[in-house]
Amino acid sequence: MPKTGALSQLMQALRCLPGVGPKSAQRMTFHLLQRDRQGARNLAESLLAALEKVGHCALCRTLTEGELCNICTNPDRDKTQLCIVETPAEVYAISQATGFKGLFFVLNGRLSPLDGIGPNELRLDLLEQRLESGDIKEIILATNTTVEGEATAHYIGEMAKQNGVRTTRIAYGVPFGGELEYVDGATLAHAFNGRKEF
Amino acid sequence: MPKTGALSQLMQALRCLPGVGPKSAQRMTFHLLQRDRQGARNLAESLLAALEKVGHCALCRTLTEGELCNICTNPDRDKTQLCIVETPAEVYAISQATGFKGLFFVLNGRLSPLDGIGPNELRLDLLEQRLESGDIKEIILATNTTVEGEATAHYIGEMAKQNGVRTTRIAYGVPFGGELEYVDGATLAHAFNGRKEF
Repeated sequence: MPKTGALSQLMQALRCLPGVGPKSAQRMTFHLLQRDRQGARNLAESLLAALEKVGHCALCRTLTEGELCNICTNPDRDKTQLCIVETPAEVYAISQATGFKGLFFVLNGRLSPLDGIGPNELRLDLLEQRLESGDIKEIILATNTTVEGEATAHYIGEMAKQNGVRTTRIAYGVPFGGELEYVDGATLAHAFNGRKEF
Repeated sequence: MPKTGALSQLMQALRCLPGVGPKSAQRMTFHLLQRDRQGARNLAESLLAALEKVGHCALCRTLTEGELCNICTNPDRDKTQLCIVETPAEVYAISQATGFKGLFFVLNGRLSPLDGIGPNELRLDLLEQRLESGDIKEIILATNTTVEGEATAHYIGEMAKQNGVRTTRIAYGVPFGGELEYVDGATLAHAFNGRKEF
């Protein structure tokens, strides 16, 4: 094997990236060292800068530089609507796909007692404080439609109810542009039962 | 858009990796910062270490730390056989797949006059010196079976002939385990014309 230390170490290190196996890592290593050394240097520096600067927003827990994120500090956002998501990536996804102008709260996980993830790990104490403050009129539950996501939505729904805050859940249904034939049964049943006036 | 400087810079920087588009870069960024900060730090350090230490072997031009690579300095290798490949990745691929015990010469490219890549860019002068030294009895042409790879093989074949060195080309044919129905016509024609006694 012609692997030298720094080369095989880099191949190994690249595998921390999601979706990158040994073959891709090898291809990336050769590409970077053969054809894009500037890109590799830039990547290393960007990683270190992000690690140093990026932390969680003190209010909504999304990833951000500084204490508060761009959304929480934006005076134009509607502070009466709070959308609950599991990850910062979903903040991006919802912002890009919808015209939502309210605020977010990022759980950075979901309730999963077996994995030792309870309300404290999700910082639901911060959410409780905001519910008690009375500013929020609607909680939009946008956790995933998995068993844990559902349980988390239910738990937060109960918290909101105790504080007299209206709670909504994003709609289940057939994906837009999807063919009914290929939709799984549970989704189809939800879509059918949740039908609306046309 | 909730993108902050260091976050979007990292997303952009990750796109220097082959096969990584905007969606993957976003997913990688969140994964690293949310779940694998240690992996991210390790990746940054491995990149910088590889950039600093890894260069080209003075003899065979593959990527290596130090002046000569593991293969060129290995006294057990057969110094009469020299396999010509286009990239360091192919040194790995051939070493892993075959029992080849000879030496390699890495072109780091292929002849492509339109792109300004001629014999000098491929360092064929180094290859010429080795052919003239008389140590090499067989040149194995393992360049790709593209038009440029073929032209490069032909050029090096001529060099070898002038020095009276035997030259072989890796076999064209149907991929092992492949179904004839799905093999392209040119490959099938080569496989048919190159048939052997069974």
